[in-house]
Amino acid sequence: MKIGLIGTGKMGSGMGANILKAGHELTVHDAKKTATDELVNAGAKWANSPKTVAQASEIVVLSLPGPAEVEQVVLGANGVLAGAKPGCMVIDTSTNSPSLVRRLAGAAREKGVALIDAPVSGEMQGARAGTLTFMVGGNKKDFDRSAAVLMSMGKAIVHVGDVGAGDEAKLIHNMIAQINMQAVAEGMALGAKLGMDLKKLNDILSSGGASSRILTQKYPRNGFIGNFEPGFRVDLSFKDLNLASNLGKEVGVPLFFGNLALQRLVELQARGHGAKDTTSCLLPFEEMLNIKIRV
Amino acid sequence: MKIGLIGTGKMGSGMGANILKAGHELTVHDAKKTATDELVNAGAKWANSPKTVAQASEIVVLSLPGPAEVEQVVLGANGVLAGAKPGCMVIDTSTNSPSLVRRLAGAAREKGVALIDAPVSGEMQGARAGTLTFMVGGNKKDFDRSAAVLMSMGKAIVHVGDVGAGDEAKLIHNMIAQINMQAVAEGMALGAKLGMDLKKLNDILSSGGASSRILTQKYPRNGFIGNFEPGFRVDLSFKDLNLASNLGKEVGVPLFFGNLALQRLVELQARGHGAKDTTSCLLPFEEMLNIKIRV
Amino acid sequence: MKIGLIGTGKMGSGMGANILKAGHELTVHDAKKTATDELVNAGAKWANSPKTVAQASEIVVLSLPGPAEVEQVVLGANGVLAGAKPGCMVIDTSTNSPSLVRRLAGAAREKGVALIDAPVSGEMQGARAGTLTFMVGGNKKDFDRSAAVLMSMGKAIVHVGDVGAGDEAKLIHNMIAQINMQAVAEGMALGAKLGMDLKKLNDILSSGGASSRILTQKYPRNGFIGNFEPGFRVDLSFKDLNLASNLGKEVGVPLFFGNLALQRLVELQARGHGAKDTTSCLLPFEEMLNIKIRV
Amino acid sequence: MKIGLIGTGKMGSGMGANILKAGHELTVHDAKKTATDELVNAGAKWANSPKTVAQASEIVVLSLPGPAEVEQVVLGANGVLAGAKPGCMVIDTSTNSPSLVRRLAGAAREKGVALIDAPVSGEMQGARAGTLTFMVGGNKKDFDRSAAVLMSMGKAIVHVGDVGAGDEAKLIHNMIAQINMQAVAEGMALGAKLGMDLKKLNDILSSGGASSRILTQKYPRNGFIGNFEPGFRVDLSFKDLNLASNLGKEVGVPLFFGNLALQRLVELQARGHGAKDTTSCLLPFEEMLNIKIRV
Repeated sequence: MKIGLIGTGKMGSGMGANILKAGHELTVHDAKKTATDELVNAGAKWANSPKTVAQASEIVVLSLPGPAEVEQVVLGANGVLAGAKPGCMVIDTSTNSPSLVRRLAGAAREKGVALIDAPVSGEMQGARAGTLTFMVGGNKKDFDRSAAVLMSMGKAIVHVGDVGAGDEAKLIHNMIAQINMQAVAEGMALGAKLGMDLKKLNDILSSGGASSRILTQKYPRNGFIGNFEPGFRVDLSFKDLNLASNLGKEVGVPLFFGNLALQRLVELQARGHGAKDTTSCLLPFEEMLNIKIRV
Repeated sequence: MKIGLIGTGKMGSGMGANILKAGHELTVHDAKKTATDELVNAGAKWANSPKTVAQASEIVVLSLPGPAEVEQVVLGANGVLAGAKPGCMVIDTSTNSPSLVRRLAGAAREKGVALIDAPVSGEMQGARAGTLTFMVGGNKKDFDRSAAVLMSMGKAIVHVGDVGAGDEAKLIHNMIAQINMQAVAEGMALGAKLGMDLKKLNDILSSGGASSRILTQKYPRNGFIGNFEPGFRVDLSFKDLNLASNLGKEVGVPLFFGNLALQRLVELQARGHGAKDTTSCLLPFEEMLNIKIRV
Repeated sequence: MKIGLIGTGKMGSGMGANILKAGHELTVHDAKKTATDELVNAGAKWANSPKTVAQASEIVVLSLPGPAEVEQVVLGANGVLAGAKPGCMVIDTSTNSPSLVRRLAGAAREKGVALIDAPVSGEMQGARAGTLTFMVGGNKKDFDRSAAVLMSMGKAIVHVGDVGAGDEAKLIHNMIAQINMQAVAEGMALGAKLGMDLKKLNDILSSGGASSRILTQKYPRNGFIGNFEPGFRVDLSFKDLNLASNLGKEVGVPLFFGNLALQRLVELQARGHGAKDTTSCLLPFEEMLNIKIRV
Repeated sequence: MKIGLIGTGKMGSGMGANILKAGHELTVHDAKKTATDELVNAGAKWANSPKTVAQASEIVVLSLPGPAEVEQVVLGANGVLAGAKPGCMVIDTSTNSPSLVRRLAGAAREKGVALIDAPVSGEMQGARAGTLTFMVGGNKKDFDRSAAVLMSMGKAIVHVGDVGAGDEAKLIHNMIAQINMQAVAEGMALGAKLGMDLKKLNDILSSGGASSRILTQKYPRNGFIGNFEPGFRVDLSFKDLNLASNLGKEVGVPLFFGNLALQRLVELQARGHGAKDTTSCLLPFEEMLNIKIRV
């Protein structure tokens, strides 16, 4: 198939590599041209706008930072809908606002274009390895049509519901993950202040009901939690928890922990850690308590 | 060896069964005599006070609800220290206050008795199966001496530090677990209110960075989260998070999420759910939002 | 002067009465025509759209529920800017989004129309009595020009800064007031649960550092706190704290208390109290604790 | 009357001066002898222990930092109860734990001594000026008997209930005041970050529903909020909110705002501000946001 890919950052470049491996023709675009070099060297064609990507493609995959970028790429003068032919399909794998994605799907529909949301879990390692999970929002027909290209990039696809539902599930996912991250940070800070051996604490936490994917992947048992190279940036987590918080307010569900986590992210940004991995939520504890949590 | 066991509730009765299986002589006591029937039928001897248990034992294992009970059982007129001979060892497997356990160890030391803390992770299934993890606080010599009897009841023992350190680790563990529980509750409530298929949501959460032991064990993939039969009671979780909160205040570590979770537990108690499993943190969402989260 | 007034609810009708008393010609419009009866009987003219109000006026005063209504009234096909002549001034006394009001001011400027924000403190009693305080955002020239009409409705006007700054100050004001409200609720609930005489507690709180306008006006010393007739509705407070929360996120200030208050308002709405006065934050405590806080 | 006074810090020395002015004989003691110099120069007699104070007095007034000091002063080997004659009365004006004060009253009763709690609002200015408000816990007879000496130091006395009730009211008072303080801090930080003129913001807040005793006294209209000379120290506020938090847990009232404020105080202590006035809750905002809130 003729596949387009817009956005070739950490996630997009891994996904593009797997699309090529699956034997599809790939046309790529990114706001920063050099970000596409790897894929172009591997056989992809460069296009100089979202519009020209769409003109060349049966299915256009978006992998962008957030709502503002997606809106611009889809609706802009040189955007996807300016180039897409009737029958084309747009798959937005960005973590996006459910209400925006519904609005974009409506605009696409008027041009005979299908637009579905299919955000992912798995981070960049999963994108590279082709082991992502896609949570898809769209009607059954569009979901079925998207399956082949999604399965070339991932190991599982879940049809959550209508357009927007994929993003809703993803926002819930990221909110929970970030609360779990903050839970670990408080626990590790308390342990460190008590003078505990953090590797042993980590062993204990991992062996019981305190264990979580965040704990075992972000705080591996050898005790090294990395250099805050993202991973997943505070700025992106802020964007996602803000969308989750808005979702809660729209449908009337109080989210005490989710919003506390969101404010902690605002604090991290204010303290200059926006571009670091979210494990940097340890830094205010280290600074304030004059302890070393990373070992 | 001659082992004593005081407290034969859900945890204690499972632990006692494994002590017997390992071939030790077991003397048991519980405030409620019938709670010891199972162990007595399996070969244990009944003693009518902690003091008489101690008189008959080389090592006395405590498995009690919390600090108040442990203090009474150890220091009371008919308590363990009134009966223990010099050279006896007391292993407190209750989740206890680190400062209390240090005080009790001091009182024991004056009588030539060693007292260590060895709280567990694994819940009653683990107690029954002999797969508990013990987090031990005490000096190296006492730790080594306790190893055989602890390994008869569990699959792992971790020497965390001096007396009290086992409880410190356990409190951190339980605080994190309870925050993870609240995170899942908020996410599931939001998903339910959005009309999402909760089994699919569960699949998505379990497959990514939102996954946690709490999620996968308490909210299994078939979507059934049980009937709130504890499991782990709100009242006990309240006790543990209160101790963790106190620990944070003692050593000066702000615990925003831990204390928010503690207040949610106070609210659950106020709403009449104190004797239910902590998964009952879903109930206020169900009631308030008029939704069904349990499927 | 020829004054227009759009929005004649609790605030607007009081404000309109004072505009008439000051001797101005008044043209009024409200989405619900009967809401203007009182003012029309007192000498105001009815106009059947915001556009026709603007055609008849030198200054148009808006008193609307929130951002959505203001945007529609200003920019709609039959909106104020469709009718306003160059040189006209629009004064938005609604509590509005600072970024929206800046966008509206830009749109007005293109038509030669000045638009400033002048939200109020004082509630409907102040509107009726002409004792409101206006916090004004706009340039010095526009502020000076607005002074006469504002002073006909209030006792004080403060020039906070450029367009939007009035709303920014108002949102900060309302956030603090709502946190103070929640503080009183927690304190009164605790006192009630302890069996304290709430009139005495009120006396004590009012005599010391716990005293606040919220305490003394909403919980007067005779102990009666009203029947939850608004007053100030939960739904409106939710709207304002949401705007304040957004402001915090835009400029990067973590607002832990403000956002906790916002989530409590979401909970109040979920529990069916959205149309009640914000003192209804006592109701969940009364229900949960089976106590009577109102005396 | 023969009055004893133990604790002559900021509060106690002001209170003692007024006792002398009222014509009573005064015997004083403080852990730091020099702290009594002013009162001794004004005519008080020094006694070298709480016991000797009690031996010389009909009524003993305590003005101490908190529960630990009061317990020691009352029950210690050289404590008040070791010296007090039957018929003596002890008035504890410290902010104390309600359960401790009940225990102390019980111990006193066994010696024929009445002990009541009478914590104050008004800070040291009020102590000096004799304008304190006392919130008294004790039976009617003891309350009546205490009235004369209390009125020599204050302008109002409120009989809240039985022993402990005075402290309960005081803890509620201090919790609300501290939440109001945090509310102002968040609002002022947001205003400062928005570039607002803080004197104008202060005017606006003071004129409306956001006004509070904290706002107008701690952030006076000229914009100067002092040099963080206490005033009321973070360490003391921490102690009081901790007691209030414990009270909530004892009787089962969830205190979301009270406990959030408590954790903020823990953070202030961790950041080295424990000995500063509680207005130092502005400092983390100033540091994090690189703004100046104090003007």
